[in-house]
Amino acid sequence: MPVITLTTDFGLSDHFVGTMKGVIAGIAPKANVIDICHLVKPHNIAEGAFVLSQAYRYFPRGTIHVAVVDPGVGTRRRPILVQAEGQYFIGPDNGIFSFLDRPKVRVLENPAYFLREQSTTFHGRDIFAPCAAHLAAGVKPKSFGPVITDPVVIDLLPRQDGPKRWTGLVLKADHFGNLITNLPSRLGRPKSLKIGSHTITRTATTYENGAEPFLIAGSSGYFEISLSQASAEAALGCGAGTPLKLTLW
Amino acid sequence: MPVITLTTDFGLSDHFVGTMKGVIAGIAPKANVIDICHLVKPHNIAEGAFVLSQAYRYFPRGTIHVAVVDPGVGTRRRPILVQAEGQYFIGPDNGIFSFLDRPKVRVLENPAYFLREQSTTFHGRDIFAPCAAHLAAGVKPKSFGPVITDPVVIDLLPRQDGPKRWTGLVLKADHFGNLITNLPSRLGRPKSLKIGSHTITRTATTYENGAEPFLIAGSSGYFEISLSQASAEAALGCGAGTPLKLTLW
Amino acid sequence: MPVITLTTDFGLSDHFVGTMKGVIAGIAPKANVIDICHLVKPHNIAEGAFVLSQAYRYFPRGTIHVAVVDPGVGTRRRPILVQAEGQYFIGPDNGIFSFLDRPKVRVLENPAYFLREQSTTFHGRDIFAPCAAHLAAGVKPKSFGPVITDPVVIDLLPRQDGPKRWTGLVLKADHFGNLITNLPSRLGRPKSLKIGSHTITRTATTYENGAEPFLIAGSSGYFEISLSQASAEAALGCGAGTPLKLTLW
Repeated sequence: MPVITLTTDFGLSDHFVGTMKGVIAGIAPKANVIDICHLVKPHNIAEGAFVLSQAYRYFPRGTIHVAVVDPGVGTRRRPILVQAEGQYFIGPDNGIFSFLDRPKVRVLENPAYFLREQSTTFHGRDIFAPCAAHLAAGVKPKSFGPVITDPVVIDLLPRQDGPKRWTGLVLKADHFGNLITNLPSRLGRPKSLKIGSHTITRTATTYENGAEPFLIAGSSGYFEISLSQASAEAALGCGAGTPLKLTLW
Repeated sequence: MPVITLTTDFGLSDHFVGTMKGVIAGIAPKANVIDICHLVKPHNIAEGAFVLSQAYRYFPRGTIHVAVVDPGVGTRRRPILVQAEGQYFIGPDNGIFSFLDRPKVRVLENPAYFLREQSTTFHGRDIFAPCAAHLAAGVKPKSFGPVITDPVVIDLLPRQDGPKRWTGLVLKADHFGNLITNLPSRLGRPKSLKIGSHTITRTATTYENGAEPFLIAGSSGYFEISLSQASAEAALGCGAGTPLKLTLW
Repeated sequence: MPVITLTTDFGLSDHFVGTMKGVIAGIAPKANVIDICHLVKPHNIAEGAFVLSQAYRYFPRGTIHVAVVDPGVGTRRRPILVQAEGQYFIGPDNGIFSFLDRPKVRVLENPAYFLREQSTTFHGRDIFAPCAAHLAAGVKPKSFGPVITDPVVIDLLPRQDGPKRWTGLVLKADHFGNLITNLPSRLGRPKSLKIGSHTITRTATTYENGAEPFLIAGSSGYFEISLSQASAEAALGCGAGTPLKLTLW
């Protein structure tokens, strides 16, 4: 029973996600379909990449991850199947799988694995879901299309400014208002972080830590800016994309 | 392993949907339960019908679709089981299945397939979920109740005003702000569409199409009014129910 | 195929819930994982308890309910496994399982059933999901840790003020704006309910009941304050925590 995951910006107020699952149920009825997130901000490829990058390592070997944040649907952007780290990834070639190490990328071009009719606006239903289901049902990766070596890559890495200084940004504000940065917590021990007009010098190891903003090594592997039982996003007026300056001890 | 789908206006902030799934798990533990949508606008039967009408064809033969948008719960409105197009549909008799072709409709009146105690306010849990689960588990349709021939029907079809002129309406604004109309894209090639104080004459085949509103033959089979990576709903100040005048070439 | 349910305040806009399901899929691939609710208000333990208390009875014997509303994650609060009423409950020891009758409570302290690395901020992923999955896969309760007799309990019961008078509160406003109280509808026949500056004397048995607020014996087993096809929460300007005075006939 292979696992297929879904990560999209389709939201939850339409039939979109359910329809994709209907397509999968018709082709691979025993697949275990798991939602990762459908509230990626519309058209925000970087956020989709971040959300999936946080989740995929926790899934079993052989899992098929479908990610559809796809502003270019119906244009010449390529649909792709990526093999990396023992798992599979299916979606548009727009950088959403940039976080993968040494990916082997194929173009999805065999219409035998698409729905018979394809719209120009809903490839999640017409191409990505059926290809994922056929892969789950045992079709070999090479049957979907040839390998390509020039996938689109987006770069969300921080920049090192000096031995103890880094420039980064906020990747995402989570549901609790924690501001998740792109600064890995293994970089070192923070002395200060500048965000907007604020300078944060407090650090903590749990979220129960008083009324001032603090830095914490989050479950994501990155530093987060947090408040105890309150939203750092709201308190600091910052969000995804806000630039950061980190100084280490 | 039969598929049971759920479409409701129950939202996602309560126990309602999970409780229905608990009831199903107790009766038909191998059923594959798939959410279509739970954010149908409260009490909006027409929207529930539209959402389900978009999804059901993509599910395998024999799928059981439960739809609960049910402002009349507990009153004399009938609970029904519909057979149509090789699939099953369970919900209140209020028009939510109006889109089905040649439906065979039965009243659910056999209490053997209800929960032992029934509230007057949550038939999703007490009647619809258990009936769907018993059907999935192999109970024959005729065991649930007799056929009726007067189900409630609601009409959302456009009106033809002349050889090239139609009056319609917006069925739904989707998560991206695309305004989905009730005007089938097979009607012809649009010359202009009047919506509120706007007249739209641009058409497109993908969503990447510049900064002005345009008409596109959507994945729904209907014309949609869209903007590239922006919300037509917000830009035009229109939404579900807004009247439309279409002129074809 | 055991059922595992999930109730959290994690929201739906992050990878959190999907990641927990990935962990479960790796350990107990045949478990049937069902969402109860992920939109419990952040850090609101009482609301989490209420939501789960409404759902769990409808699940089959042996179901494993994971509940993570956990403002104290990473502190000395204990992770626990509760056996009660033929089911299992896993989460933090903060009162979220207070509604259970005669619970047998164990501390989760055997790291063999945790993820190898544990963050201080995401025990849903690192402790609760893997323990639930190992339990589903057949590990015996006693293997997780010793029994404790002092679990945290929170009290949401109404207070009796006289033979016909009760003081209570609103437990939760549901998605439709119905105000669910902590006053069991088996207390008797309501004469009046004071909420804020309003006194409600009308009662009803269905939601189709005119334009004024009314009291109804809800599907929850509690009195609810409702409006026909409108939000009592919005109309009365009240919500979770609002105090109530009930007088019975």
